[in-house]
Amino acid sequence: MHSINEYREEFINYLNSKKLTKEPRNLYEPITYILGLGGKRLRPVLVLLTAEIFNTDYKKALDAALAVEVFHNFSLVHDDIMDDAPVRRGEITVHEKWDINTGILSGDAMLIMAYQLFENYEPLIFRQLAQLFSKTALEVCEGQQYDVDFETRDDVMLPEYLKMIEYKTAVLVAAALKMGAIVAGASEKSQEQMYAFGLNLGIAFQLQDDYLDVFGDPKTFGKQVGGDIIENKKTFLYLKAMSSGSEMMTKELEHLYSIQPKESETKVNAVRSIFERSKADEATRVAISDYTTKAFEVLNDIELEQDKKDLLQQFGENLMNRTV
Amino acid sequence: MHSINEYREEFINYLNSKKLTKEPRNLYEPITYILGLGGKRLRPVLVLLTAEIFNTDYKKALDAALAVEVFHNFSLVHDDIMDDAPVRRGEITVHEKWDINTGILSGDAMLIMAYQLFENYEPLIFRQLAQLFSKTALEVCEGQQYDVDFETRDDVMLPEYLKMIEYKTAVLVAAALKMGAIVAGASEKSQEQMYAFGLNLGIAFQLQDDYLDVFGDPKTFGKQVGGDIIENKKTFLYLKAMSSGSEMMTKELEHLYSIQPKESETKVNAVRSIFERSKADEATRVAISDYTTKAFEVLNDIELEQDKKDLLQQFGENLMNRTV
Repeated sequence: MHSINEYREEFINYLNSKKLTKEPRNLYEPITYILGLGGKRLRPVLVLLTAEIFNTDYKKALDAALAVEVFHNFSLVHDDIMDDAPVRRGEITVHEKWDINTGILSGDAMLIMAYQLFENYEPLIFRQLAQLFSKTALEVCEGQQYDVDFETRDDVMLPEYLKMIEYKTAVLVAAALKMGAIVAGASEKSQEQMYAFGLNLGIAFQLQDDYLDVFGDPKTFGKQVGGDIIENKKTFLYLKAMSSGSEMMTKELEHLYSIQPKESETKVNAVRSIFERSKADEATRVAISDYTTKAFEVLNDIELEQDKKDLLQQFGENLMNRTV
Repeated sequence: MHSINEYREEFINYLNSKKLTKEPRNLYEPITYILGLGGKRLRPVLVLLTAEIFNTDYKKALDAALAVEVFHNFSLVHDDIMDDAPVRRGEITVHEKWDINTGILSGDAMLIMAYQLFENYEPLIFRQLAQLFSKTALEVCEGQQYDVDFETRDDVMLPEYLKMIEYKTAVLVAAALKMGAIVAGASEKSQEQMYAFGLNLGIAFQLQDDYLDVFGDPKTFGKQVGGDIIENKKTFLYLKAMSSGSEMMTKELEHLYSIQPKESETKVNAVRSIFERSKADEATRVAISDYTTKAFEVLNDIELEQDKKDLLQQFGENLMNRTV
């Protein structure tokens, strides 16, 4: 077994060893660009880690890990077009650096290239990987569509929101873990348990992201604190406050979510205060804790040596302990 | 064996039997819409036809045929965004009826759904189909990128142009034929020969499309005659005229391709006249005939009963004899 940092380094070395830029350059250069922007490489690291946990050399899992990372970046490129986002990981987005058409076409090519990365596996493994990948990728599209739909709906319910973040974020984390298990030839039961572990951890992670967006430390939180409030995003905090707050609170919150003042600090503070007074903040912390606990319960049931469970648990704890 | 019309009818029945519209509706409704717009269904019919030619019930090839059609329509949805096209098959395009974001996301979902359609085949067939599909899909993206690049380049050479139309159009026709052969378990040699037959026929078809765009009968040609000239598209005719015409002709042609007059008839007629005087029209007819002949030569070499070769030849001849 290696450390998380070692897996990350090995993955980046593998990524860099692939000469992705070929002809036509205008199609492949944006792909090299976005894949080179960095990020935590969380998903590919999980693929490698899981393969070794089930007693298989991580090297065998490098192509599957790369497929997951290429897909993740494909979704970023297309999402950034849809969100009209100028910046990604502190750098200019693909469709801003080139243009929207380039973003669409290079993204399409990435989705196809992700599938091609499974081709070095034997037929049965190839089929399992491609099948899981397709199911996951389609769910990510559905999650993105729900996210878009929610923007213009004022009757979104909490279970719907949870399904949206499950599809948009958690299923890919879950799939990364399951892919490592598939490559290692782990039992179907173990594969499903790893998937469930990742799914619960992924939901907890996204809920925490919602929480930190409002209550995080500006010094350590990667994005602008209050960003979701400024954009009137209906997050778990908002939906919980709307369902649990007093009539006065919900009326005020509705009003605050209908305006977009140039100077946002007053609005952010007012919304944050409602989240606190309605106890939506506490409810969110409970939900994060519930999903994290559920993830670790599933983990505990997996037939694995204790030191390997400890490693995964430690990974999960590190993930959930950032800047709270 | 069935007639082309029967295969088309069976394919459309199968397409309609698939309930493609599920939740979230905003993701799947555009997919049902574009797939329902019609078209000749040329590619899926070729998959079914080829399966039966190699002695396999066409029903076994329906999913592969649908995958090819779904991919083809995915590429239309994304290309129409890139070309800012308002109309497709006489109806409003997806991104105009909904919006660009819907076009991007529904297109992405279609690309994934195409892969899922291979999942009912056994692992070895699945792998062969998915592998051929990925290679083809990536080439189609590359072809689209070359097409975009050529718009702003003034040094495009004929071989580059031929490679562009091969990738953008012909490889999918070739892949459709090869997929039918794969599903039927035909020999690798037969698979490759079917591919080569389709590739040459596809190039001939696209060159003919270029030709008819200028010299076709407005009554029977589906699109606006002269459309390529109005859009200053560097087609085979243009590139041939530029390389074979006199200095006076190429100067005039360059000028005509730098303007976009409101009233286009004079320009279209002047360009058409240069295509004739430079004998680019004749050279294009020769090229079409060469690729068609090559396709039929390849066909003739395939180890197949004569009546089946005749059927494919007849199909090719019908395709090439539209409205010339």
